[in-house]
Amino acid sequence: MKVDLNCDMGESFGLFSMGQDEDMMPYISSANIACGYHSGDPHVMRKTVELAKQYGVGIGAHPGFPDLLGFGRRHMNCTPSEVKDYITYQMGALREFASAAKMKLQHCKPHGALYMMAMEDETLAKAFLEAIAAVEESAVVYALNQSAVVDLATKMGIPVAREVYSDREHTANGSIVLTRKGVAIDDYEHMAQRVVRMVKEGVVVTHTGEETTLKAETVCIHGDTPGAPLLAKAIVKALKEIHIQVASIKEVLGVSC
Amino acid sequence: MKVDLNCDMGESFGLFSMGQDEDMMPYISSANIACGYHSGDPHVMRKTVELAKQYGVGIGAHPGFPDLLGFGRRHMNCTPSEVKDYITYQMGALREFASAAKMKLQHCKPHGALYMMAMEDETLAKAFLEAIAAVEESAVVYALNQSAVVDLATKMGIPVAREVYSDREHTANGSIVLTRKGVAIDDYEHMAQRVVRMVKEGVVVTHTGEETTLKAETVCIHGDTPGAPLLAKAIVKALKEIHIQVASIKEVLGVSC
Amino acid sequence: MKVDLNCDMGESFGLFSMGQDEDMMPYISSANIACGYHSGDPHVMRKTVELAKQYGVGIGAHPGFPDLLGFGRRHMNCTPSEVKDYITYQMGALREFASAAKMKLQHCKPHGALYMMAMEDETLAKAFLEAIAAVEESAVVYALNQSAVVDLATKMGIPVAREVYSDREHTANGSIVLTRKGVAIDDYEHMAQRVVRMVKEGVVVTHTGEETTLKAETVCIHGDTPGAPLLAKAIVKALKEIHIQVASIKEVLGVSC
Amino acid sequence: MKVDLNCDMGESFGLFSMGQDEDMMPYISSANIACGYHSGDPHVMRKTVELAKQYGVGIGAHPGFPDLLGFGRRHMNCTPSEVKDYITYQMGALREFASAAKMKLQHCKPHGALYMMAMEDETLAKAFLEAIAAVEESAVVYALNQSAVVDLATKMGIPVAREVYSDREHTANGSIVLTRKGVAIDDYEHMAQRVVRMVKEGVVVTHTGEETTLKAETVCIHGDTPGAPLLAKAIVKALKEIHIQVASIKEVLGVSC
Repeated sequence: MKVDLNCDMGESFGLFSMGQDEDMMPYISSANIACGYHSGDPHVMRKTVELAKQYGVGIGAHPGFPDLLGFGRRHMNCTPSEVKDYITYQMGALREFASAAKMKLQHCKPHGALYMMAMEDETLAKAFLEAIAAVEESAVVYALNQSAVVDLATKMGIPVAREVYSDREHTANGSIVLTRKGVAIDDYEHMAQRVVRMVKEGVVVTHTGEETTLKAETVCIHGDTPGAPLLAKAIVKALKEIHIQVASIKEVLGVSC
Repeated sequence: MKVDLNCDMGESFGLFSMGQDEDMMPYISSANIACGYHSGDPHVMRKTVELAKQYGVGIGAHPGFPDLLGFGRRHMNCTPSEVKDYITYQMGALREFASAAKMKLQHCKPHGALYMMAMEDETLAKAFLEAIAAVEESAVVYALNQSAVVDLATKMGIPVAREVYSDREHTANGSIVLTRKGVAIDDYEHMAQRVVRMVKEGVVVTHTGEETTLKAETVCIHGDTPGAPLLAKAIVKALKEIHIQVASIKEVLGVSC
Repeated sequence: MKVDLNCDMGESFGLFSMGQDEDMMPYISSANIACGYHSGDPHVMRKTVELAKQYGVGIGAHPGFPDLLGFGRRHMNCTPSEVKDYITYQMGALREFASAAKMKLQHCKPHGALYMMAMEDETLAKAFLEAIAAVEESAVVYALNQSAVVDLATKMGIPVAREVYSDREHTANGSIVLTRKGVAIDDYEHMAQRVVRMVKEGVVVTHTGEETTLKAETVCIHGDTPGAPLLAKAIVKALKEIHIQVASIKEVLGVSC
Repeated sequence: MKVDLNCDMGESFGLFSMGQDEDMMPYISSANIACGYHSGDPHVMRKTVELAKQYGVGIGAHPGFPDLLGFGRRHMNCTPSEVKDYITYQMGALREFASAAKMKLQHCKPHGALYMMAMEDETLAKAFLEAIAAVEESAVVYALNQSAVVDLATKMGIPVAREVYSDREHTANGSIVLTRKGVAIDDYEHMAQRVVRMVKEGVVVTHTGEETTLKAETVCIHGDTPGAPLLAKAIVKALKEIHIQVASIKEVLGVSC
């Protein structure tokens, strides 16, 4: 059994530092790299790609809305055409840094409000799926369980990975609870066991206390969660103990490059 | 005898319109497309690439400093490393729109202050030449006569095109006079003959009244010059009359793609 | 009988030109000045304030969402607290240019999506009304008929002006139809008579053909409407013919400064 | 004997955190607040003003170049007219938040490259001095010893404070050495004694080892210096021991409000 561990990376901007990229790299298999819209800048992008290469971590684009001030977390009613062009722009820019490091874009995970809006908005989901597939046909798209993106990507023949969160509460419909706090960050061992259960059994206790089922092909650990590297370490250890291998998302899904 | 005619294009931004792209396309052979830093946005970039394709015009990147408010015309003391990353980012983004239209980046012409600063600053010139060559080995770089860029590109084996201006005054040292006015814009026939002389004889009368020699492998016509399409039309006509062909810069230089 | 004529002004940005400010000034009584968020920059703001002063035109803030790329026309789900701070920032910046010209902020008209969203969202309306009143207690707020803003401002004791549009279609509920086209721009005399009827009778034919009633305390003419100065001239002439005076919004409402 | 202690504050932006504002407030007498150009945003500005008020700390504007990506530290050749308008815009915006908290702008300290460039460029110095005086006649301007700003402000009758740095090396000509490291940050007691000597004797050992004289009317402590609050605490303690009082810059200079 295999699972992908992903982390949002390269979210620093100029002199503004964000996340704990170097400390997270040893534990993850996929880095979602910001592309300059919600955060990230050309210098940070290059450094992050180089860092991922050094650790053998797969890289993907993490494109967002053009809202640096809101960190891409605010809904913006961009047209589908705008969203397509924004995705193309950001993926193209990142791909150039990937090429310079002789790497390929393995996946794409839309960021923040774009990710959440597309869960329910099929038109938006279609727009960015078309953009992603046009830029890199083999790129895996990350999406929440029960998202419009999952269904549509499947129909369109685009590889899609169902994502769960190690540090956010889930809802019964497969979504996540968007607070900056997430689950209680006090017991990494407990959190790791919660992840293990999602990966192994496909079950999680929702924020309202019931159990719900989901697929955990990739697990997100936010780099700005307090103690994120400790959490990542605990997850890797817990998975190892029951012989679940942390692997690239393409291995997990069994798709070729 | 052949010459390339180039024009800065895709400099609109959101609802802000700039230039006369559609009216210029029929006359030119190369479009320098803004990449979102000094102007341009993803939507404009896509439209401009598609327009160039429709007219059979070669496309190149026109990367600038991250200064939308100053339109990339203000000197900024970015480090060489920053400049490299900015070029890579912008060219990568543009290349993605080019790929979507099944086109290739034919050339790169740095914009505004970046172009002018590199004329005299070899460190800066080296930085962006390395970035351009890394992104697209076959891309031709545009530079002023007697520029540090010309010498350095030649040494580095990077194809370089010497550029003259149809609507700006030249100085004796191969530079241009940076006013928004340029040469008197009143007699397109006269201006066209001035271009013909630069292309055919390699001579121009400078802003101080003397003759100087230069190479005119590519001629720039600014799209925001009043009556730019009329000027372009007059230049094409004047060149045709003496059997100088408007051709792609690669044909002019005799380099392969 | 009196009415205020207003126009969005100062929407140029850097080298990007927008609107026909100088040509509109002779006809209007109120200038809504962009404050650097959806458009406008410090240089443009100062010039626009000076121009308004020269023509004896009242000035007001025209604050928008921080979305230059979308010209503030895209809904963004900013929090009420963010909206308040954005309004304070933009009004403060404009007020400084006003003070330098020995002028006062006469009014505030939120721009684009902010204006439209507040029509229906009372929380948002409350946020920006509080911000406006805190910055300049005597400032008149512009709002659509039947807007949440009108009711709330009245309750809060904030002077509010009901606005109609000379170049956009109205709906039965007092809103406007947001296309870039607006009403047929072909017969300025006809458009002027439509304005006269709104001002005098409080009646307009909606985009679906029925008559609806509204109050026209201030009439907006968009500066980027084709032939806007001709339209403004026709409106002023038509109003004059029936002895309706173009006056400052404070005179129209009968509030003191 | 009295001295002002100042710290750059409010340099966070959106979700990007910068500095240790809350931990520095107890020790300083003046907060230089970023105004949204090189960093800072409306929300951060409001919070920072409120925090300063709570601690009885004087507030001033810390305006910079419009270069968020470069944190205002890169030279930009803006025109004097642009600089004036940028200063007016930023000070006006900050003043509004100050007014809301019933505070006044006590001083203005240009940020980063703007501060350094004006040290040697009298035209630039004149531009921002005029802008500052127009916005707030009584505002004290902070400048390096031997700066063009000091001489010019004195001539223009603008109160000016000569500033020294607790955590940067000085040069013989009154400038500072711009590295991110500054002086060895290892012995706060030693650094505090260096400050005491500057304040009391007007002497500092330069980065090349000689002694030079300067006036220390205000002392800067950078909030992003490692252990900045400990350094600030040590400075306050050392000053107290020899009965030098930390006071507002207006008290230090003996100017009225």
